[in-house]
Amino acid sequence: MFRRTSTLARGALLAAAVVITPITALGAAAAPQEGTAADRAPAAAGGSRTVQDPKESGDPNTSERVRDVVFAIHGGAGTLRREDMTPELEREYRAKLTEAVRTGQRALADGESGVAAVEAAINVLEDSPLFNAGKGAVFTTDAENELDAAIMDGATLDTGAVTGVTHIRNPISLAREMMENSRHVLMSGEGAERFAQHRGMDLVTQDYFFTERRWESLMAAKGGESDFDFGETGTVGAVGIDGNGDLAAGTSTGGLTNKPVGRIGDSPIVGAGTYAKNGNIAASATGTGELFIREAVTHTISAQVEYLGRSVSKAAGAAIDRTEVLGGDDTGGVIALDSRKNLAFTFNTSGMYRGYATADGEIVVKIFADE
Amino acid sequence: MFRRTSTLARGALLAAAVVITPITALGAAAAPQEGTAADRAPAAAGGSRTVQDPKESGDPNTSERVRDVVFAIHGGAGTLRREDMTPELEREYRAKLTEAVRTGQRALADGESGVAAVEAAINVLEDSPLFNAGKGAVFTTDAENELDAAIMDGATLDTGAVTGVTHIRNPISLAREMMENSRHVLMSGEGAERFAQHRGMDLVTQDYFFTERRWESLMAAKGGESDFDFGETGTVGAVGIDGNGDLAAGTSTGGLTNKPVGRIGDSPIVGAGTYAKNGNIAASATGTGELFIREAVTHTISAQVEYLGRSVSKAAGAAIDRTEVLGGDDTGGVIALDSRKNLAFTFNTSGMYRGYATADGEIVVKIFADE
Repeated sequence: MFRRTSTLARGALLAAAVVITPITALGAAAAPQEGTAADRAPAAAGGSRTVQDPKESGDPNTSERVRDVVFAIHGGAGTLRREDMTPELEREYRAKLTEAVRTGQRALADGESGVAAVEAAINVLEDSPLFNAGKGAVFTTDAENELDAAIMDGATLDTGAVTGVTHIRNPISLAREMMENSRHVLMSGEGAERFAQHRGMDLVTQDYFFTERRWESLMAAKGGESDFDFGETGTVGAVGIDGNGDLAAGTSTGGLTNKPVGRIGDSPIVGAGTYAKNGNIAASATGTGELFIREAVTHTISAQVEYLGRSVSKAAGAAIDRTEVLGGDDTGGVIALDSRKNLAFTFNTSGMYRGYATADGEIVVKIFADE
Repeated sequence: MFRRTSTLARGALLAAAVVITPITALGAAAAPQEGTAADRAPAAAGGSRTVQDPKESGDPNTSERVRDVVFAIHGGAGTLRREDMTPELEREYRAKLTEAVRTGQRALADGESGVAAVEAAINVLEDSPLFNAGKGAVFTTDAENELDAAIMDGATLDTGAVTGVTHIRNPISLAREMMENSRHVLMSGEGAERFAQHRGMDLVTQDYFFTERRWESLMAAKGGESDFDFGETGTVGAVGIDGNGDLAAGTSTGGLTNKPVGRIGDSPIVGAGTYAKNGNIAASATGTGELFIREAVTHTISAQVEYLGRSVSKAAGAAIDRTEVLGGDDTGGVIALDSRKNLAFTFNTSGMYRGYATADGEIVVKIFADE
């Protein structure tokens, strides 16, 4: 109730934009608004370790390949335009991305597992209001925050995932708890939260997730505005390879602004938004989750590497292309790391928050497609 | 409350077996009991269209290949022993399996889509108390029935799936409704039910799902008995190919007896329990869902057919073998149909309720591995 009081007070500023939604339509799968398509800058040549390719056919993806990578993150793909972002906000994003990459890289350097590094880096992004995960999660159409996350250990194919949790500060940590201390791999809502309590995790109330920015995005969606700028971006994910050569991947998200209650996207679905298998790849996706589920994007990348011997970059490009066949332009992106430390960043949007660390400790972060 | 009254009255007969479960442990992912391993009969030679193979290595799977199949179903794989089943019960199972296959086969003969045939056949199984789906769903550890289902159209890769619904008589029909009338593909619990109401579907109260047999299974699980006979079997699924050559697949389940609230298995997960893609395969799985999620079993079959050119039978065997590597014997089974009407029934348990119809209208149903 505390949150409702505070959010209603804030919401009053935006009351003109509020559309009263009948309760029976809350699960009616109304079309969430998505960012408008933006011009895409052509891919430019990158640094010494980086190669950028145009797509082989159709509209160009941004496909960035980097060698000798031990850890990488994304903070969502979407319509990211320089003109929508103040220099101050851009600095904040780059600083937080850098902090998250460094956190994962240091965990690995300290001898921790890939799983631990993935969790630690995603915790940094979940605790920031900048990204659509944890603290910065977007609102459902019922003005709540429902969070999804998954983590996977490529050495064992162990995995844990949660969906629709509403009182978990760090869903990726609950996913890991489930992976390591449950015989189940995927749990939803109240049941997942009972497991969290059973494991001694602290729960937070919904007001923890309130941010003015996400509230305004919800009001704009209900008011029929179609341009969210950053509203639809911000799912976070990480991939890493540790000293044992074990791959790991994780993803955490608040889903779509104005999503129907109970809608599950690709993030917590093994083989869709998250997958890791030693010898193949570790991958985390971000985008229009429905398309990524239908094409089992991360498992497709893993299968193409395993069965076709494709490079991780080529497989990632093929998987994103498949989502475009189903859903048109601007479906999203994926980060994928293979066992030989080749990283692919592949996306068909105008930007993807992203960063990586190389084996020798170099850290690079980027936002726009043309960087 | 009506259900609780009736079930508690019935439950009193079994009161000695009831273990009081602390509420905080309801989501604690307690290990559900599973059937004990049974002796497996060696595979026997089948009919003219049927070939049965031993597995290539390790313990033998039952791997049955049938040609010229247009429609097939399963009613769960598990520890199925002739000595546990009365002749009367066996007749009931065979009659209901036959009815379900015939329902799907007739829908196709009448020119309906593969999706419609899959839905119609699964409705027959959901409406029967014999199977762990719809009416016959097993109980969670909190003595409720939480149902999961998914359906997929191989022509479009459209899909709809629901998880944790508690008031839906035919979850497969809600999944189809979601596929055809929502931009979302996977919804859970209350949100999925709001969508059902929005689409004008009738909801049922929990007492609809009460059956003495499933209640006894729950009491036995809480009492620590380890042998359920049929308690863990009964997930239902169907695959079909229609007059346009379009593949479709669907799966519906009540999950595991005594499962924690909110636990999601493979059935509603695209690429795990359910997948269909024209040119590749339509498949529905049944078994220890966690393993089938981790190995993305149905997408693995699809990928092996697409990338390796494997037969559907060989791909299904390889996918089930992978679940055994993770989870040992008796992990479950899968039915898979390719675009050339080759059907594979593959399972590593002592039985799988199953049946198929050929293009010329022959209907065959089987239960035990050695049939």
